[in-house]
Amino acid sequence: MTEKNTAGIDIGGTNLRCGIVGKGGTVKSRLSVSFPKSLNEAEKQVDFIVKNVKQFLSANEKYGVESIGVGIAGQIDDKSGSVLFSPNLNWHEVPLKHILEKETGLGVYVTNDLTAITYGEWKFGSGKGENNIICIFVGTGIGSGIIIDGSLYSGCSNAAGEIGHITVVSGGRKCTCGNSGCLEAYAGGLGIANIAKERAAADINGFKNIIDAAGGVIGGITAETVAAAYKSGDKKAAELIKETGIYLSDGVISAVNFLNPCAIILGGGVIDGIPDMFDTVKNETCKRALKASLSNLKMLKSALREDAGIIGAAGLAAMKRETV
Amino acid sequence: MTEKNTAGIDIGGTNLRCGIVGKGGTVKSRLSVSFPKSLNEAEKQVDFIVKNVKQFLSANEKYGVESIGVGIAGQIDDKSGSVLFSPNLNWHEVPLKHILEKETGLGVYVTNDLTAITYGEWKFGSGKGENNIICIFVGTGIGSGIIIDGSLYSGCSNAAGEIGHITVVSGGRKCTCGNSGCLEAYAGGLGIANIAKERAAADINGFKNIIDAAGGVIGGITAETVAAAYKSGDKKAAELIKETGIYLSDGVISAVNFLNPCAIILGGGVIDGIPDMFDTVKNETCKRALKASLSNLKMLKSALREDAGIIGAAGLAAMKRETV
Repeated sequence: MTEKNTAGIDIGGTNLRCGIVGKGGTVKSRLSVSFPKSLNEAEKQVDFIVKNVKQFLSANEKYGVESIGVGIAGQIDDKSGSVLFSPNLNWHEVPLKHILEKETGLGVYVTNDLTAITYGEWKFGSGKGENNIICIFVGTGIGSGIIIDGSLYSGCSNAAGEIGHITVVSGGRKCTCGNSGCLEAYAGGLGIANIAKERAAADINGFKNIIDAAGGVIGGITAETVAAAYKSGDKKAAELIKETGIYLSDGVISAVNFLNPCAIILGGGVIDGIPDMFDTVKNETCKRALKASLSNLKMLKSALREDAGIIGAAGLAAMKRETV
Repeated sequence: MTEKNTAGIDIGGTNLRCGIVGKGGTVKSRLSVSFPKSLNEAEKQVDFIVKNVKQFLSANEKYGVESIGVGIAGQIDDKSGSVLFSPNLNWHEVPLKHILEKETGLGVYVTNDLTAITYGEWKFGSGKGENNIICIFVGTGIGSGIIIDGSLYSGCSNAAGEIGHITVVSGGRKCTCGNSGCLEAYAGGLGIANIAKERAAADINGFKNIIDAAGGVIGGITAETVAAAYKSGDKKAAELIKETGIYLSDGVISAVNFLNPCAIILGGGVIDGIPDMFDTVKNETCKRALKASLSNLKMLKSALREDAGIIGAAGLAAMKRETV
């Protein structure tokens, strides 16, 4: 008998990742492509995804893929597999499961990207063996997935885990969600970039290194350019990164005190791309969270990193296939 | 066959409540006594509790109490029924279950007060029929209990629900827990009193009504005196109460966005004692939380109010008795 394989698809705001995932979460083949900037409509983006997924499946025919798991940032209707709303992609009511099933002839399971990532880390990554986990990924935005007593927790309307939208500064910075003071507005990649841009505009000399790292244009500043300036020893970047660490810790401490998990898993570009960020958050949490909540807590780094989404999406699809 | 009854005991920072609780959460007899201020040691407080519980049981002998449930603010060792730490009472390692069983000859189940309250509201109060609930009580401090997919969620070290210690103002007011910016430091009864005292000391004329309500002494200001001044139309009290409503809403919105519950239940002195507080928090939450998280959310007021603790503690003890 040949081994069963599953395709995992991770649809982010800027990248499409595909993988052939075998038993134990092994990735046998990978594809990562950026969305061309010209693709600014849902229909064209879906076409791009379909084309790439089909090509990827053809090129990997020998693995005998049995079904497809998809993780995508946004709110998913768990029954229909439709994307109700994806803020990053600006999708509204896209019947993604239906489209991909029709185009590939395979069964497709669609879930939220953080749900996929969390499942991946839980089954095959740093969360193995734990039953109460909060897995927090800090990229452009900040999201989390929650394992409660050995099950994925999805909430009352499949929307649980939005830790990026807990308040850390009452009445603070405006967030993309419409509310103010959200964690994501301070410590997500977009938030970091926005704060840096504002400060650079008010202090062009002081922010010279960061502006240079952004190609000389304030509007070109991103979290990556701030990280690059930080790594080269820039003082203003160091200040901003220090603040980011405090805000992220506030968010993690809130989650630890409120839910008393056995493990916090941290991952995503802001954690992986900024030296010492994980250690800062770990140290702050151990210093400031409630003693009772810390007594059994493990602070872990994502083990699967950029593969977490494809491994988790494939793992969930395989699990759904087995249990149908 | 006579009906089975259970005693429920609610041990707060200032009050001891006892109740005889029958089927369906009916309270058949009640006792509420304040701890004399002279009782400032755990040993004397325990003696006071034992004496009152035994008298209460004797006076209600006709109800044939089968076991006792106790809810107490603090961290409980679920196995031994010992109180590991109660910040309000300043208890450390008090073997409460053992003591009460020896003294009464009945089986005793000890749990956290918010766990008891939440169980009470879930089974017999406003949470009936809901499976995902966060029950938040705002008194001297702020705590919560969590029902996840139809079970009480206790966390990795029996410490879940400490919503009073989520950060709402990064780097903000010092909290009794040692951290800064906790919800409880802004919107708990003690937090409200502390803020009022500081402002009154800096503006004695402006705070005349509040100081008067506290018997003319700034040190005597409590959340109750602020509420009294607010009810009589005082402007400074109104400002402070408005801020309290915003902070409380920040905390509730954080919980709603993070956990996507089906119901939020709000209760406790600050909710019950301040006109419009519940409506303020409800309106702010509906205005500012994520649309996806609000789609199935019910905002409810505690139905059992001051009886929630005794009804819930008794209910849990009865449930444990049935399932042993």
